[in-house]
Amino acid sequence: MSEQDKAHNAAMKKVQIRHREKMKKKTKPDRGLLLVNTGDGKGKSTAALGTIVRALGWGHRVGIVQFIKGTWKTGEKQFFARFPDLVDLEVMGQGFTWDTQDRAKDIVAAEKAWRRSVEMMSSGDYDLVVLDELNIVLRYDYLREDEVVEGLLARSEKTSVIVTGRDAPGKLLAAADQVTEMMNIRHPFQAGFKAARGIDF
Amino acid sequence: MSEQDKAHNAAMKKVQIRHREKMKKKTKPDRGLLLVNTGDGKGKSTAALGTIVRALGWGHRVGIVQFIKGTWKTGEKQFFARFPDLVDLEVMGQGFTWDTQDRAKDIVAAEKAWRRSVEMMSSGDYDLVVLDELNIVLRYDYLREDEVVEGLLARSEKTSVIVTGRDAPGKLLAAADQVTEMMNIRHPFQAGFKAARGIDF
Repeated sequence: MSEQDKAHNAAMKKVQIRHREKMKKKTKPDRGLLLVNTGDGKGKSTAALGTIVRALGWGHRVGIVQFIKGTWKTGEKQFFARFPDLVDLEVMGQGFTWDTQDRAKDIVAAEKAWRRSVEMMSSGDYDLVVLDELNIVLRYDYLREDEVVEGLLARSEKTSVIVTGRDAPGKLLAAADQVTEMMNIRHPFQAGFKAARGIDF
Repeated sequence: MSEQDKAHNAAMKKVQIRHREKMKKKTKPDRGLLLVNTGDGKGKSTAALGTIVRALGWGHRVGIVQFIKGTWKTGEKQFFARFPDLVDLEVMGQGFTWDTQDRAKDIVAAEKAWRRSVEMMSSGDYDLVVLDELNIVLRYDYLREDEVVEGLLARSEKTSVIVTGRDAPGKLLAAADQVTEMMNIRHPFQAGFKAARGIDF
C-alpha cells in the first residue's frame, strides 16, 4: 500500500469514528418537518418532486397544492396519476401572475388554495404536503405571512411540509426545520436557451 | 377595482410584455445540456431524481451511475424498477469512503464507474445520464478532472447529463450549461435530528 493510500485510509478511519459519535447523539424526528426550498436557482420544485417519489416509495400519502400554474406539467401529472390512492393534487393557480393581470382574482385563488392546504395539513391524512410556489403568493401579499406561518405550525404532528418558491419570507425561514437556498450560478436561459423537454418540464 | 389592484395589474402587464420579448430571442436547446448540482445543502440528488421523473414522463431513456453507495435507497430503486425498458441503474460505489478506508479499492471502483459513464454518454442510447456524487470522487482525486471534463464534453449530442455532489471542481463548472448551488441555510441535523424516512431516503 502506498504512503498516500495509508494516510488517506487513516484519515478516513478518523472521519468514520467522528461520524459515528455524532450520530449517537442524533434522534429520529418524532414529528413531521417543515422544509423550505428557496433561492433564484433551479431545483426547488424539482427537489420536492424527488422527495415525493421517495415518500411514495414508502407508501406514504402525499398532498400537493400548486399555487401557481405551470410547475407540474403533463409528465409529472401522468406520474402522480399512477398513484391514485396515495397522491392528491390540487391545482389552484390561474396561470402566472403576469398572465392574469388580475390581482383580485389571484387573491381569491390564493385564499382558496390556502384553505385546501390547511385542510390537508391538519387532517392527519398525509405524511407529506407540498405547497408549491407558496412563497410567490406571499411575495405578492396575496396571503398574510403571519396567518400562513401559524397554519404551517398548527399542522398535524405526523405531517411534513415542503414549501417552495423564491424569496421565502423571514418568518417562514425562522419557523422552518430545514432551509435550502438553490442559488443560480449559471443558467442555460442566460446562454439563449429556452426550457428543455425532459429537463425543465 | 382598487388603486392597488390597478397599479399591480399595470405592472404585471409590463412584466408580461418584457417576458415575451425576451422569450422571442431564446431558442430550444438543439443538444443535450450539462447540468451540475453542487453545494453543501440538500436537494442535489433529490432534484436529479425529480428530473428523472420528468424525463420518464416523456418516455425518455435514462442512465444512472451511482459513484457513492447510499443515495438511491430501496424506495427509489423500486421506483426505477417500474421502468425496466427506460432506466439503467449502475451502482458502483462500495459504500461511503469513510466506510471502506481503502483508497486503492475505491479508485478501482471509481474508474469502473467512469468507464460505464462514458459508455452511456457516448452511446446515443440515453436522453439523460445522471452521474450521482461524481464530484465527491473528483474531490478525493479518484479520477482525473481533465479526463472527466473531456469525457463529459465528448458525449452524444442528444444526451443531457446531470452531475451531483458538493465541491464541484472549477473545470467542470466552466464546462457546464447550468450550475446550481444548493446552500444549506438550516438543516434538521443541526437540531439533533437524524435523516427521516420518506424525506431523506
